[in-house]
Amino acid sequence: MKKIEAIIRPEKFQALRDELASHGFLGLTVTEVAGTGKQKGQTGVFRGTSYEIKVLPKIKIELVLPQERTDEVIDIIIDTCHTDQIGDGKIFVYDVEDAVRIRTKERGKPAVL
Amino acid sequence: MKKIEAIIRPEKFQALRDELASHGFLGLTVTEVAGTGKQKGQTGVFRGTSYEIKVLPKIKIELVLPQERTDEVIDIIIDTCHTDQIGDGKIFVYDVEDAVRIRTKERGKPAVL
Amino acid sequence: MKKIEAIIRPEKFQALRDELASHGFLGLTVTEVAGTGKQKGQTGVFRGTSYEIKVLPKIKIELVLPQERTDEVIDIIIDTCHTDQIGDGKIFVYDVEDAVRIRTKERGKPAVL
Ligand SMILES: Nc1ncnc2c1ncn2[C@@H]1O[C@H](COP(=O)(O)OP(=O)(O)OP(=O)(O)O)[C@@H](O)[C@H]1O
Ligand SMILES: Nc1ncnc2c1ncn2[C@@H]1O[C@H](COP(=O)(O)OP(=O)(O)OP(=O)(O)O)[C@@H](O)[C@H]1O
Ligand SMILES: Nc1ncnc2c1ncn2[C@@H]1O[C@H](COP(=O)(O)OP(=O)(O)OP(=O)(O)O)[C@@H](O)[C@H]1O
Ligand SMILES: [Mg+2]
Ligand SMILES: [Mg+2]
Ligand SMILES: [Mg+2]
Repeated sequence: MKKIEAIIRPEKFQALRDELASHGFLGLTVTEVAGTGKQKGQTGVFRGTSYEIKVLPKIKIELVLPQERTDEVIDIIIDTCHTDQIGDGKIFVYDVEDAVRIRTKERGKPAVL
Repeated sequence: MKKIEAIIRPEKFQALRDELASHGFLGLTVTEVAGTGKQKGQTGVFRGTSYEIKVLPKIKIELVLPQERTDEVIDIIIDTCHTDQIGDGKIFVYDVEDAVRIRTKERGKPAVL
Repeated sequence: MKKIEAIIRPEKFQALRDELASHGFLGLTVTEVAGTGKQKGQTGVFRGTSYEIKVLPKIKIELVLPQERTDEVIDIIIDTCHTDQIGDGKIFVYDVEDAVRIRTKERGKPAVL
């Protein structure tokens, strides 16, 4: 299993959730985060401070899924969340060693499907 | 070392924290998240929209621990957090490559114990 | 690629962000979390309950970066965030299997630089 973590623009969250659901991905976790990215013209020190590097509100989506569906979900996120403006966000992929559905005690792949 | 990440019902948090502490797990990180899970009768498209897939408040617990105590903690979480109703939550297990206690600069297992 | 996750004192966040930016680390994700750590004199059961284990506000920083810069960032975090008082925080290191910049569809290392 893998975890896909996407940091996206908050205004894209609803569309992404709908698109994921229509592909059968009903379980996901959402966190309100703040982020800084690489921005042209912003450096670490500006007018003596670096407060100029803005921290912007973002939404983090976490989705644990069977490995073979990873590329499908990455494509859904890119298609749904890109605007071609800077700040569209990032996707990170991690390995997941085990999963448990607490109600049924199922483990592994059956616990995430 | 491993990280156990559990997404649980908020009303179970206090009992879980107490139970973990009584087993010697004093360090953990808590995040307020929102989640969607698989629900019978809810699909991606309903009355033309998918807004019917509810996003519910959940608590995410993160606990980094020595590998050999992973199953002990999974059992504690299942025992403390199950109600046998849908929505009891999920547990995910990840590998952790290194850990550092910032105050002492200890690394690896001594940093998480 | 690796992910460095640091749980730090909120009052250290601005200094850490500035220091990371001055080393070229402009992209990072910040989450408001709460945490409990190991505290001398606090045990799981106290006056019949364990409510005495305080949950304190902390800031979680997540930074995905090329593997070869991991130790550099760990040193920056230790230097910037230690006060030698208990509660200075923790750093955890995870493997990251892939990264995507949503705007450009770049993958792997070019997506995090
Ligand atoms: N290296 C990183 N580690 C952790 N989080 C990151 C990293 N880079 C970006 N992020 C998160 O992703 C969010 C969006 O980043 P952003 O889309 O601005 O990336 P970018 O590399 O600057 O690309 P772009 O040039 O398209 O703006 C940031 O606000 C931050 O939360
Ligand atoms: N695949 C997943 N990836 C990431 N987070 C998930 C996933 N599935 C569930 N979650 C998180 O776990 C929370 C609880 O999920 P839930 O217990 O409803 O799982 P479920 O698979 O629907 O099981 P049940 O049938 O018992 O309801 C969700 O609100 C969400 O935050
Ligand atoms: N094992 C752990 N797993 C997950 N998060 C942890 C763990 N230990 C600590 N944390 C997080 O790190 C924060 C800071 O921990 P803290 O610095 O108090 O660690 P400590 O081991 O008690 O060290 P110290 O003796 O210096 O206080 C906690 O509030 C919690 O959010
Ligand atoms: Mg950017
Ligand atoms: Mg459910
Ligand atoms: Mg402590």
